[in-house]
Amino acid sequence: MVEKKPTRRSIGAQRNPESEAAILEAAEAVLLEGGLSGFTIEAVAKRAHAGKPTIYRWWPSKAALLLDVYHRHKHSNFTYIDTGTIRGDLKDYLLSLIDAWRKETTGAIFRSLVAEAQADPATSEALATYMAERRRQAGDMIRRGQARGEVRPDAEPEIVTEMIAAFAWSRLLTNRLEMNEAEIEAFLDLLLTGIRNPQA
Amino acid sequence: MVEKKPTRRSIGAQRNPESEAAILEAAEAVLLEGGLSGFTIEAVAKRAHAGKPTIYRWWPSKAALLLDVYHRHKHSNFTYIDTGTIRGDLKDYLLSLIDAWRKETTGAIFRSLVAEAQADPATSEALATYMAERRRQAGDMIRRGQARGEVRPDAEPEIVTEMIAAFAWSRLLTNRLEMNEAEIEAFLDLLLTGIRNPQA
Repeated sequence: MVEKKPTRRSIGAQRNPESEAAILEAAEAVLLEGGLSGFTIEAVAKRAHAGKPTIYRWWPSKAALLLDVYHRHKHSNFTYIDTGTIRGDLKDYLLSLIDAWRKETTGAIFRSLVAEAQADPATSEALATYMAERRRQAGDMIRRGQARGEVRPDAEPEIVTEMIAAFAWSRLLTNRLEMNEAEIEAFLDLLLTGIRNPQA
Repeated sequence: MVEKKPTRRSIGAQRNPESEAAILEAAEAVLLEGGLSGFTIEAVAKRAHAGKPTIYRWWPSKAALLLDVYHRHKHSNFTYIDTGTIRGDLKDYLLSLIDAWRKETTGAIFRSLVAEAQADPATSEALATYMAERRRQAGDMIRRGQARGEVRPDAEPEIVTEMIAAFAWSRLLTNRLEMNEAEIEAFLDLLLTGIRNPQA
């Protein structure tokens, strides 16, 4: 049998953390100053004193770069905190999504990304990859709950987290992020105990 | 006390069913032939031999007309059937949404509407009105289940139906409508019985 060599990535494809941070900072500045319409790889390259080929080597499309900027922007207020209970974890997750999107820039970037993904295949692919990674990460909350015995062992973690994210998307995309506490608790009740009447 | 007269609508605002159908048929034909980029009130008016003011009197925006075309197109394969059980009703609802959106035109129209709603306030408002009406109608399935005693009396019908529609949106907008039977059943299990471990 012939042993396969591990695939060798070119040196150029390896991201240099300092340059990466500089490009992401430049991209965020370009976005905040000129909005989405002014957000081009050319403008980011100029601002970061980087070459366009360098940016394209690390981010295959404008959408991929925009998603990284979005995630970095959101991330400071966004975590999958272990609160000790599944209800606490999921409430924290939903609230952190809603809070992040209520901030004009973060919400607007994500809305634009979803909109562009409906027409542009590169954005669609970048968004799909991003969402798959988020579902995997958020799924850890469900797996923690299963390890604690709080969550049914047969609950599929990524379907649960998609149900939460989908509900938040639905609110973002129809301008209804202003949920009150009662609505959030009602949603969590449904998610935790379902709709079936226990008396039936 | 002064009795309020009922608000009188001008005759012009009352839709004439025949003209309405002719305009909707013309709109669908324009859409199917020229796609969204060719979909203008002018093109629809020409095709329907109607005046632009007549169309604008009945549909305040291009988005409102497009939503009516979409709904008419979808409606032939889309109902809130009473199957006799809440699980049957909800499965039928989810499958009818997914099936309708898998058809290229219906899915593409709705994706475009959601995309346009992120940038255009008139489309956003038309979509919000449309979705509120759909939630109210779909909520009848939950109210039927509550009347049968199958569904918890405290389950908020419109939050439940939004959870289902939001999940379908999430799949449509990220190109993942090709759900298999197991995924659909897993989603329905979660919706009906929740994620909490009954042994805990």
